[in-house]
Amino acid sequence: MLKHTLVALLSVFSLFGVAQQPTVIEDFKPSTLNQPGKEYPMVNSQGYARFRVIAPEAQSVIVSLGLGGKGGTKLVKGADSVWTGTTEGPMDEGFHYYHLTIDGGIFNDPGTLNFFGSTRWESGIEIPAHDKDFYALKDVPHGNVQQVLFPSPSTNSVRRAFIYTPPGYGKDKNKRYPVLYLQHGWGEDETAWSNQGHANLIMDNLIAEGKVKPFIIVMTYGMTNEIKFGTLKSFDIKPFQTVLVNELIPYVDANFLTLSDRNNRAMAGLSMGGMETKMITLANLDKFAYIGLFSGGTFSMEDVNNTPGFKEKVKLAFVSFGSRELEHRWPGFGGGDPKENAEALKQAGINSVFYVSPGTAHEFLSWRRSLREMAPLLFK
Amino acid sequence: MLKHTLVALLSVFSLFGVAQQPTVIEDFKPSTLNQPGKEYPMVNSQGYARFRVIAPEAQSVIVSLGLGGKGGTKLVKGADSVWTGTTEGPMDEGFHYYHLTIDGGIFNDPGTLNFFGSTRWESGIEIPAHDKDFYALKDVPHGNVQQVLFPSPSTNSVRRAFIYTPPGYGKDKNKRYPVLYLQHGWGEDETAWSNQGHANLIMDNLIAEGKVKPFIIVMTYGMTNEIKFGTLKSFDIKPFQTVLVNELIPYVDANFLTLSDRNNRAMAGLSMGGMETKMITLANLDKFAYIGLFSGGTFSMEDVNNTPGFKEKVKLAFVSFGSRELEHRWPGFGGGDPKENAEALKQAGINSVFYVSPGTAHEFLSWRRSLREMAPLLFK
Repeated sequence: MLKHTLVALLSVFSLFGVAQQPTVIEDFKPSTLNQPGKEYPMVNSQGYARFRVIAPEAQSVIVSLGLGGKGGTKLVKGADSVWTGTTEGPMDEGFHYYHLTIDGGIFNDPGTLNFFGSTRWESGIEIPAHDKDFYALKDVPHGNVQQVLFPSPSTNSVRRAFIYTPPGYGKDKNKRYPVLYLQHGWGEDETAWSNQGHANLIMDNLIAEGKVKPFIIVMTYGMTNEIKFGTLKSFDIKPFQTVLVNELIPYVDANFLTLSDRNNRAMAGLSMGGMETKMITLANLDKFAYIGLFSGGTFSMEDVNNTPGFKEKVKLAFVSFGSRELEHRWPGFGGGDPKENAEALKQAGINSVFYVSPGTAHEFLSWRRSLREMAPLLFK
Repeated sequence: MLKHTLVALLSVFSLFGVAQQPTVIEDFKPSTLNQPGKEYPMVNSQGYARFRVIAPEAQSVIVSLGLGGKGGTKLVKGADSVWTGTTEGPMDEGFHYYHLTIDGGIFNDPGTLNFFGSTRWESGIEIPAHDKDFYALKDVPHGNVQQVLFPSPSTNSVRRAFIYTPPGYGKDKNKRYPVLYLQHGWGEDETAWSNQGHANLIMDNLIAEGKVKPFIIVMTYGMTNEIKFGTLKSFDIKPFQTVLVNELIPYVDANFLTLSDRNNRAMAGLSMGGMETKMITLANLDKFAYIGLFSGGTFSMEDVNNTPGFKEKVKLAFVSFGSRELEHRWPGFGGGDPKENAEALKQAGINSVFYVSPGTAHEFLSWRRSLREMAPLLFK
């Protein structure tokens, strides 16, 4: 009798559970980030992701993506010895890193391209966003992204940067451009903004629509990954500040068609790159006039009051977050409520702009949108 | 008695076997192509590679690299549940693609960077070559490699090329450069020559030593991977020829500081890219004066006689192979003995150069060296 009751109860829960989930629409298409010719992973119009992995003798295959706290998506082995599975629910729009756990070992999905995050090259999947058009590859004039190897005496090494130059750059030898220095987050590197960020395509599209003044973007490695995440207080900005301010900026100004005064130089960064941006720009307001923090801290009136010249010199204080970060009360690196902070700066006469990316967490779609929102406000 | 004899015999074989193998020197170091902070795979001074893979519950882990015909290197699970193994013998110097087979599924080694080959991103390992200095990252002036997105009406798409510009490019707006169009092989793409080929570093070093006249290198996707390898006869050059000759060359000449006459344009390619190079250049001698085939065919007197203007217009006919390709009698795409062919062209008064990369097979060190050998002969 007790057993029957339990079974009945479980059936109700089970039915309830099914009723809660929307019906999965069978319109799955290959993720746009798949390797050439690869069908899986797939994504449907609701944001479900479906995976398929060949490992006939494996004991278990788990995809790290899935609904919060459930340990990812466990794939099931079919009669054909192929492992398949679909996420339990729709995922947030945009880009997600992930990996496979096969028999206890961590590997990438052979179906997808890899992206540098979590200090390693990981699989990536793209859930098409409702506004995906702004980062799409379109038939518009395209700028270039070039790999630059620059000397860094302070680190006794040759370092790498990627530099976006807008369409038509260099055709008129007398035309010079402002520069945005744009930083990745912890675990990532200088490839992130071009690969998973599509910064070049975002710029190409904004320029084609006449929404921004064309500018150069410089992306280099922020040296963030030498420390363990979670020990931010031990982070010393000096080594990276020396590379950026004393070595990279002079190299870029000497080798590219730049406008090199402070009014034509901006810096922005995501997550830990936002923290770096704040530290470097506030210590070097003679070099930067526009500042953007993407999910990487806020500017409070304390910052304004403690930084000589902030009010006169900072021509834009841009702060953004994904809406899910605010929901979960993770405003990034402390410093008070970011929206209230932004409002206080505005009241104090500072060009303070606060942006929230709808329906996204601490992930790259928040930052693609942040770049789209900030770019038109630069170099006015 | 019989049993004793057999044991004695096996012992002798066993000792003999051990005596045949050189002693493995325990000076293993991380491969230079490892992901940041990864110790494995490792390589020793003799060219042995050692692998370490974590997959505690796996049934078998096999590395595709190993001595010929032996099915790769089978890793062994230790008491710590970690799989390890060393190649049975030393490997050829240079770059090798590889992958892991885990419980029957193909995955990449999480320790290494990935390189596009075999139509997918694969793991790569580098056995330091005795002459590795020529492709090393050194403290010399560096050129840039830029990603260009160019319009291709014939394929109704936006296509990608990578363009190497030499150090100092653009500083003098009146200085223009010759251009080498450089193609990858089957299974690879436009990333190959920069990633696994180190074409940019080879050029930077040659320029720093004053051995070459600085030139631009253009690398794009040769559309080779849409056909199955082994069905070369069905390969139609026209779609790629149209992209290269009618779309990319005009785009490069319009957007870069090029010298655009035939005497300042070269084309070379490896393997199937060599076959493409031969077909495109011989059909367009009004556009190309220097030609290089790296492990990708030869020029015979029949080619010379069947191509109007060959003798007058071809200023360099460069042909190269890895020595192991010649040992195994695989001269690539037929056409007779490549060395004899090269000699016949020379006798006919053509600037024919034949190069053999010592101790390498149909792999990237052969092609890095081929570029090093050919570059100084271009644009004289």
